[in-house]
Amino acid sequence: MPYPHFKELRPAYGFDDVAIAPGRITVNPEMTDISMEIEGVRLGIPLIASAMDAVVSPAFAVKMHELGGIGVLNLDGLQTRYEDTAGIYQEISETPQDKATAFLQKVYATPVREELIGRRVEEIKKHGATCAVSVIPANTKRVAPAAVEAGADLIFVQSTVTTARHVSKSVRGLIFSELRHNVKAPIVVGNTVSYDVTLELMEQGVSGVLVGVGPGAACTSREVLGVGVPQVTATIDCAAARDEYYRRSGRYVPIITDGGLRTGGDVCKAVVAGADGIMLGTPLAQAEEAPGRGYNWGMATPHESLPRGTRIKVGTRASLKQILHGPSHLTDGTQNLVGALRVSMGMVGAVNLREMHDAQMIIAPSIKTEGKIFQMRGLGS
Amino acid sequence: MPYPHFKELRPAYGFDDVAIAPGRITVNPEMTDISMEIEGVRLGIPLIASAMDAVVSPAFAVKMHELGGIGVLNLDGLQTRYEDTAGIYQEISETPQDKATAFLQKVYATPVREELIGRRVEEIKKHGATCAVSVIPANTKRVAPAAVEAGADLIFVQSTVTTARHVSKSVRGLIFSELRHNVKAPIVVGNTVSYDVTLELMEQGVSGVLVGVGPGAACTSREVLGVGVPQVTATIDCAAARDEYYRRSGRYVPIITDGGLRTGGDVCKAVVAGADGIMLGTPLAQAEEAPGRGYNWGMATPHESLPRGTRIKVGTRASLKQILHGPSHLTDGTQNLVGALRVSMGMVGAVNLREMHDAQMIIAPSIKTEGKIFQMRGLGS
Amino acid sequence: MPYPHFKELRPAYGFDDVAIAPGRITVNPEMTDISMEIEGVRLGIPLIASAMDAVVSPAFAVKMHELGGIGVLNLDGLQTRYEDTAGIYQEISETPQDKATAFLQKVYATPVREELIGRRVEEIKKHGATCAVSVIPANTKRVAPAAVEAGADLIFVQSTVTTARHVSKSVRGLIFSELRHNVKAPIVVGNTVSYDVTLELMEQGVSGVLVGVGPGAACTSREVLGVGVPQVTATIDCAAARDEYYRRSGRYVPIITDGGLRTGGDVCKAVVAGADGIMLGTPLAQAEEAPGRGYNWGMATPHESLPRGTRIKVGTRASLKQILHGPSHLTDGTQNLVGALRVSMGMVGAVNLREMHDAQMIIAPSIKTEGKIFQMRGLGS
Amino acid sequence: MPYPHFKELRPAYGFDDVAIAPGRITVNPEMTDISMEIEGVRLGIPLIASAMDAVVSPAFAVKMHELGGIGVLNLDGLQTRYEDTAGIYQEISETPQDKATAFLQKVYATPVREELIGRRVEEIKKHGATCAVSVIPANTKRVAPAAVEAGADLIFVQSTVTTARHVSKSVRGLIFSELRHNVKAPIVVGNTVSYDVTLELMEQGVSGVLVGVGPGAACTSREVLGVGVPQVTATIDCAAARDEYYRRSGRYVPIITDGGLRTGGDVCKAVVAGADGIMLGTPLAQAEEAPGRGYNWGMATPHESLPRGTRIKVGTRASLKQILHGPSHLTDGTQNLVGALRVSMGMVGAVNLREMHDAQMIIAPSIKTEGKIFQMRGLGS
Repeated sequence: MPYPHFKELRPAYGFDDVAIAPGRITVNPEMTDISMEIEGVRLGIPLIASAMDAVVSPAFAVKMHELGGIGVLNLDGLQTRYEDTAGIYQEISETPQDKATAFLQKVYATPVREELIGRRVEEIKKHGATCAVSVIPANTKRVAPAAVEAGADLIFVQSTVTTARHVSKSVRGLIFSELRHNVKAPIVVGNTVSYDVTLELMEQGVSGVLVGVGPGAACTSREVLGVGVPQVTATIDCAAARDEYYRRSGRYVPIITDGGLRTGGDVCKAVVAGADGIMLGTPLAQAEEAPGRGYNWGMATPHESLPRGTRIKVGTRASLKQILHGPSHLTDGTQNLVGALRVSMGMVGAVNLREMHDAQMIIAPSIKTEGKIFQMRGLGS
Repeated sequence: MPYPHFKELRPAYGFDDVAIAPGRITVNPEMTDISMEIEGVRLGIPLIASAMDAVVSPAFAVKMHELGGIGVLNLDGLQTRYEDTAGIYQEISETPQDKATAFLQKVYATPVREELIGRRVEEIKKHGATCAVSVIPANTKRVAPAAVEAGADLIFVQSTVTTARHVSKSVRGLIFSELRHNVKAPIVVGNTVSYDVTLELMEQGVSGVLVGVGPGAACTSREVLGVGVPQVTATIDCAAARDEYYRRSGRYVPIITDGGLRTGGDVCKAVVAGADGIMLGTPLAQAEEAPGRGYNWGMATPHESLPRGTRIKVGTRASLKQILHGPSHLTDGTQNLVGALRVSMGMVGAVNLREMHDAQMIIAPSIKTEGKIFQMRGLGS
Repeated sequence: MPYPHFKELRPAYGFDDVAIAPGRITVNPEMTDISMEIEGVRLGIPLIASAMDAVVSPAFAVKMHELGGIGVLNLDGLQTRYEDTAGIYQEISETPQDKATAFLQKVYATPVREELIGRRVEEIKKHGATCAVSVIPANTKRVAPAAVEAGADLIFVQSTVTTARHVSKSVRGLIFSELRHNVKAPIVVGNTVSYDVTLELMEQGVSGVLVGVGPGAACTSREVLGVGVPQVTATIDCAAARDEYYRRSGRYVPIITDGGLRTGGDVCKAVVAGADGIMLGTPLAQAEEAPGRGYNWGMATPHESLPRGTRIKVGTRASLKQILHGPSHLTDGTQNLVGALRVSMGMVGAVNLREMHDAQMIIAPSIKTEGKIFQMRGLGS
Repeated sequence: MPYPHFKELRPAYGFDDVAIAPGRITVNPEMTDISMEIEGVRLGIPLIASAMDAVVSPAFAVKMHELGGIGVLNLDGLQTRYEDTAGIYQEISETPQDKATAFLQKVYATPVREELIGRRVEEIKKHGATCAVSVIPANTKRVAPAAVEAGADLIFVQSTVTTARHVSKSVRGLIFSELRHNVKAPIVVGNTVSYDVTLELMEQGVSGVLVGVGPGAACTSREVLGVGVPQVTATIDCAAARDEYYRRSGRYVPIITDGGLRTGGDVCKAVVAGADGIMLGTPLAQAEEAPGRGYNWGMATPHESLPRGTRIKVGTRASLKQILHGPSHLTDGTQNLVGALRVSMGMVGAVNLREMHDAQMIIAPSIKTEGKIFQMRGLGS
């Protein structure tokens, strides 16, 4: 008689559960190289602004480019539904909280206007900036080629959960290997959290994989649907797939952590977990340049009877330059994310992001220790 | 000299300790089959209303049937003690909180009237609804045959802790294998939380097993008695027994998770843990159709000197249809439980409940991560 | 080159970290035998009142005996320092909080009067009650024989941490094997938390071992001294020593859990962890019969410059009978401790305490699950 | 196909996560020897005041010496920038909180005056006290020889993270083996948290190693940079390196835990984790003799755009003598640290610090148990 089989549960960790251990040598932060590359598109800093309407406008994307990163423009949002977006943003910010969800539903009921797709891409390209755009899977075949024709350099195909296969009666799922032949630009695909799916997507030829389900992009998923994997474990798993795929194929496909990062410490931990790039939403929605005027709202495809997005106030805290490059006047880790990453790499002894992947990370679960850190902030011992 | 033997403690998990990991493929939610079967009795949706007086009246049972599920009528409660239950329910809801326990004790001191048993069953059957009733072990041999004769389709035999054997000086425990010969209807038995007891009950021929001790049905058990097993671990253990029994006998006996579920996320996790059906109390006591008028109270057999039930206000939140099938106007997971289950199955890539049993589940214990999710609710990242 | 040796840390658990799993059979609570024996002294119930001045007076000890348990009279406290204790107790209860510690220090500065030792023992014996007394190690050789001569049936020798050997320049430690020859009564020794010490004490011939350092008896130990072992793990370890000693010698020496128990659930868990007896302080200081008048204060030998005891208000909540045997009007587990133990044993299927030692215990660490239980108290699901 | 490689995370623990288990024998606290030695410099008690301006002035260092310990004077702070420090301290304490950081930045912008280095050392030496001074790595070669010439007995070379090698374009890192030939005094180096770095530093000939990154010295590191290792695990790891180096070389190099200790319990746990000495900041900033006047502020080398130090109020609580040697009027473990260490060693049965290293330590993570301890403070059970 065989021993009965009990389902096994695997522990998983988020940013607040872990910390980075310093390394055997230290490196001067100024000597660190934090650039990344997505199939030939090079970013000086590995920070990517989320394809959220409250974060990335064409002007914001240009600014991100100037500061070394990139902003992803949502081609299924306000920018392609309205010619005059300024007025819409103002109305959203002025709607009382109890009417915000209903107003957003109304605003997003307006259909996308095809002619605005190319125009928004051009607004970015004409300033010499690298242009990244985001499309939803259902529209990809139609929208992506048009965007590329208008000059888009990177296509992000995003849904809450992406796999290489989708079973449906009515719709045939996207086949990324086919898509690669029709779209003449690198394609970043997501979101996923698993080793298997990451490996399969890379085998289909995608140019990058977005990591994260639950914390962030579909952030009420855990309560409503029970689904979600803490971001550190998700990143570790997908990084293992990237490394395995690289070993097999010799092609290095970057993974981009997306969801729930708030501080420089989170950025550093994501890289140690294996991320090549970091996608940021709320931390950048707080920039003076963000179109959301101190608000942010969810972009998850609305499931009519399962609402998963509402407007929340995030405040306007500093210029984008200060958030990314400092100087920081705060000690909460929300400013000078690039400086934090470089100093952290210096402590670990990592000269570039791939060396940072090899740093040690520990589980440090104590709430009380954390509490003490808060209480003791700024003290020498 | 042998090494000393120290008692071993095994970790156990509840709904808030775990999350579901997305799968390798995705499935269109509309393609999912969420039906279940209890020995020939088929339910379109796997949701079962608890045999609590504040939840299931004959009219509520009919409504549950119309919406695809089933409601279990308590044959040892108000419905079989009073002819005019409407008046009793009103009195209970109007009693001040400090007198509620005493009033409930008085109300339940009235004896059960045998003639009301058949009448309540008929009130359900005459609308063409499937009829499930609940009896306590001590009354089973007397009440169950009468209920079946009146048309009951399913018998639930419930006590706080059920085993296949009970040691007592005065009472001979129920022998379920004998009961099966005397009662011509499927018999669902519970509650238990262990592999061994589930296997033994199935070997005695029961038609279903209710899982859950501690969180829910006897919910002060843990503080008063120290007894209780968190629901995810209990479900996993009993599901392992079901699978082993199926392997041995070829008979598939469903297990029904009972206790402590509040949200769609909990329902999804229960299925991934191995549940075939889900019993819900408080979430359905909040329906407009619930007889409890916004209150709920415990059904545990009162142990004179160890009180374990009191009336609490749960509020009336929506129609039963909205709670089960949506649409949902809330993001807290308390509405559209069926939609949540289908969408979650879609993310996991499960076409039916038994495929959902094979999904991966993780331990995600971080309180802070949870906190962040709350704080970030509705945001894209 | 050998692998470096890192110190290993072992996880340890307290009452709130664990829960009892129900068993394979159930037993009628009325059939359970919860008696225990300490070298021929039999207790009908395994509950022992702590040797604290706020808990046990001679009258209280008589009452405990009548209710099936036993109360341990402190021979190094108020009862042997003052002829008229009633007045002292009243003064203590009437001292303002900010002067309480100083007043207690003054009260306990009065020397012990030898003639009161025998008198207090006789006050208990004349009512036909079993008499247990507590002495500190330094006074044991002098006080214990006098107490036994006056009729004491059980001697408790207690200090914060007891081992079989004590290293000191000035004082020769107690040798329990010698003590056994000079004191003609069973000797219970404590406190300890370790397998090794328990085994060594039993090999020296003690009649019982008190388990617990940290939670309770020296309850600021953990903060001030860093010392303390959570009570479930301590009990499991000492129970393993008892079982090993029994295996070797055939003599069964009971262990008594002492410290930090508050509820019926804690009592049940202590027994499952392996305890033969349960020592209770604060829960009994809340009895109407307790001499402390709603207060309790520490008995730890005061270390002049490391104060570890102060007076705290515990309130008067019910009669001793109600606390021990019910009926309970509360659902927080603080009343009817005996009833709770019997019902819990029934769920586990244990007919006596030694069968209860074999029950399964789980680690159920979720704070949120616990929270939910509170919120859901009294509900059927 | 090899199994994919997932990054492994190792659990780590801080003071609040652990507790000390009592030992097999007990020892009279008065018999314990708690002295330590750093390459011939002997300390009667193993407590070292942090090189923070708010803690150690020359007068404070003299007082520490008189009480058995040592205070480390910061040679890169106020004492070497200002002739009249009293005025500066007063100004700092009188600056409003919202201007404190800016004022501190201004105060520390004044350059170090070389002639003050020798003078401060002499202020300590002229009272016959052992003199320890702290220098930052960049200034070590210049400042350390001058300090030694003036009479300094111990040199501490401290930075946030120290390794035996530093990679930089502009600066050649300190080579400690070279430094040892140029500085005629024992050199203590830090901070580190790892086995490898500790071993490497000892092989380079350092006289002692400071342990701790994250909790304390650079205490916002975890949030800003993600870097930090809880102190118990860090101490265990570095102690393993010390023991391995001792096994290889026969030279015993003490390790000093630095960061986050608040109570006597923390001091005891640090020693059990393997520390030979304990560096204290805030607990001593609360002494009446501390120059900070009830404030403390961070000494971390300010990274212009990543501020990591601010002034916080710590209050003045007792004389240094009372904090170190008692008597204590409090039960929170902040006074009589030496007494606590001796009593704890007595419970463990350790006669000296190296025996205390062998005590057992447990993981006792329960928040609720901790809560109960607070609630029960001072009670006998």
